Amino acid sequence: MNGVCVVGMGTTEFGVHEEGIAELGVTAVGRALRSSGVDRDDVDALYLGNFVAGMLEGQETLAPLVADSVGLTGIPTMKTEGACASSGIAFRQAYQAIRTGIHDVVVVTGVERMTNAETPEFTRALGSAADHGTDGATGLTFPGFYGLVLDRYMHEYGATREQVAAVSVKNRENGASNPRARFRSPVTVDDVVDSRLVADPLRLYDCCPAADGGAAVVLASADVAESFTDRPISVLGSGHATGRSAAYRYDDLTTLEATTLAAEEAYETAELSPDDVDVVELHDCFSAAEIGDSEDLGFFEKGEGATAVAEGRTAVDGEIPINPSGGLLSKGHPVGATGIGQIYEVCLQLLGDHENQVDDAEVGLAHNLGGSGAVSTVTVLGGPSHV
Amino acid sequence: MNGVCVVGMGTTEFGVHEEGIAELGVTAVGRALRSSGVDRDDVDALYLGNFVAGMLEGQETLAPLVADSVGLTGIPTMKTEGACASSGIAFRQAYQAIRTGIHDVVVVTGVERMTNAETPEFTRALGSAADHGTDGATGLTFPGFYGLVLDRYMHEYGATREQVAAVSVKNRENGASNPRARFRSPVTVDDVVDSRLVADPLRLYDCCPAADGGAAVVLASADVAESFTDRPISVLGSGHATGRSAAYRYDDLTTLEATTLAAEEAYETAELSPDDVDVVELHDCFSAAEIGDSEDLGFFEKGEGATAVAEGRTAVDGEIPINPSGGLLSKGHPVGATGIGQIYEVCLQLLGDHENQVDDAEVGLAHNLGGSGAVSTVTVLGGPSHV
Repeated sequence: MNGVCVVGMGTTEFGVHEEGIAELGVTAVGRALRSSGVDRDDVDALYLGNFVAGMLEGQETLAPLVADSVGLTGIPTMKTEGACASSGIAFRQAYQAIRTGIHDVVVVTGVERMTNAETPEFTRALGSAADHGTDGATGLTFPGFYGLVLDRYMHEYGATREQVAAVSVKNRENGASNPRARFRSPVTVDDVVDSRLVADPLRLYDCCPAADGGAAVVLASADVAESFTDRPISVLGSGHATGRSAAYRYDDLTTLEATTLAAEEAYETAELSPDDVDVVELHDCFSAAEIGDSEDLGFFEKGEGATAVAEGRTAVDGEIPINPSGGLLSKGHPVGATGIGQIYEVCLQLLGDHENQVDDAEVGLAHNLGGSGAVSTVTVLGGPSHV
Repeated sequence: MNGVCVVGMGTTEFGVHEEGIAELGVTAVGRALRSSGVDRDDVDALYLGNFVAGMLEGQETLAPLVADSVGLTGIPTMKTEGACASSGIAFRQAYQAIRTGIHDVVVVTGVERMTNAETPEFTRALGSAADHGTDGATGLTFPGFYGLVLDRYMHEYGATREQVAAVSVKNRENGASNPRARFRSPVTVDDVVDSRLVADPLRLYDCCPAADGGAAVVLASADVAESFTDRPISVLGSGHATGRSAAYRYDDLTTLEATTLAAEEAYETAELSPDDVDVVELHDCFSAAEIGDSEDLGFFEKGEGATAVAEGRTAVDGEIPINPSGGLLSKGHPVGATGIGQIYEVCLQLLGDHENQVDDAEVGLAHNLGGSGAVSTVTVLGGPSHV
């Protein structure tokens, strides 16, 4: 098996963009290619993660369109979709193609444009990540799903509303210094618990904002990585797993097995454990999600996640810094772009170049989750010394 | 590199279905699994090709949903999209995963549900396969694109309207005996050239119908294939390439380089040439497409395709039988299901079980094409004696 490295990366700001969705991809891919030193002739394939460009932009077939627009015709291209994990999956496919020697250099991008949509079409588009025939038919939305998750979590483990609000407070504080974030203003615990009720017990500041954005990385086999950059990031491990597609199918809503299984595979391929991880970007689509994810990824025991965040153990200078980028709660969640956006933030940390730099960050983890715990990818990355 | 085999397959009829899109996938996958002798515990991954379930059914995240519904949780799942080549791409990814030893057994399915859509939403959905910002903005539809292609072809090579109509006549005759086809009634050359004008010079019977459907195959490494079935079909070669995403980007509309490049790769991996192929299922979304495809795939010289079909050289008993299933023109084109549907038909031929059986068919080719020649996959398959 070949080693796999990130040799270049590019992103747009996550926020409100006037450009069309293809242009967001073109911008991100162009920046990634320029930062990588890779020529177009070196690129063997382009994979693109996207969720709802069809529904919101009337534009499918984005992978060949972005490829053709940046001068990468001829090569294999595809869009991968797994709701909010769409570009985590694209990354995973590229990793496997390089690891097994199918390709030497693959461009992976994720794109989404959402903020120009009217509320009904926006709600319908997001709802397409759930099982339309069961959860959808009962009116269960994603805030509704995570409201149920949080209710059950508080009941099982005695977490308080204020502890959960600490996730939003931490991530909004981190996001305030991230120029790629949509929201850059801090909030207090009182702001969170007094904000508008969305889906009991979740309130407005427990929920990540929509955003438009594109992010891209250039992956290369370790053999050739150093011919492109003197600071390659190593992909140490990867996991990808499917869980339940509807709320009624869960025995226990406080654990999402897509995450636990993807994490298990990622740690196993990396030959590392959660204790080895220095910095984490995980899928905080809601404050409640970060708490569950932090346990499912093995950083805390079940039931310990809420107290951990409230005690500052996941702060930038804490024992296991989680979402120093501000996470989805600050950056926003341009769905198809989020997975690569997370990997971008982790790579910046491992290069020592992040605005909220974690001291001595050598191993990072990115966790992407789609649907009602339907599908997840976990990626473990190592700094230049690991190549 | 491991050998890769088709060890099971299943399909729904392509036509008008009342079931939801997930159910079409569940039916196809269930049939494929039952025909394969593969247990659910043996399955390592599920890949699903789909184009516009979001736009037309409000349902994305179909891969984990279908997997969860058939009892295949835990494993990696993803949807691949490349317009009309969506499930050809899913097949390609599964082939590569088995070939390189990542997985031993992968289920690949393709699904689409279209016939319940109203005309405006249907037109918008199909249009999402083109570049929305260029071709789409000028009002160019897919019949319009292939009308331009045919106009240019007739101009360049002197083909007649009647020769082109012979494609529809042949495919509708073949489809008449295919129980999986939406249209099962023959048409004459006069019927075609007198049918309603759609996009000059294309008329109604030059255009494939929409359809609902699901198709699935179970792929396994050659090492384990014979433990599941005594009649495995061998995947001898595979190609996947990107072409131009908008009409204005072509130098020559009569050749689609996505197809020529994918075919080149497929023949190269199979170590075969067009002369070795006994039966072909190719992407006849329009009569004009079949003629161009038959040349781009190397079966005829440029400009020879129209006379070849008119002379019966591509009939079931011709020198190179093309679309003995009736093709998209008869079966219908449930977009995301078409690629696997084509592979299903080729496999039936190689097993000697097809309703329009080609004598001594040992090597077959399936060609799937998405967008305005944006992306294509080509698969070369060999009968049980090739394993």
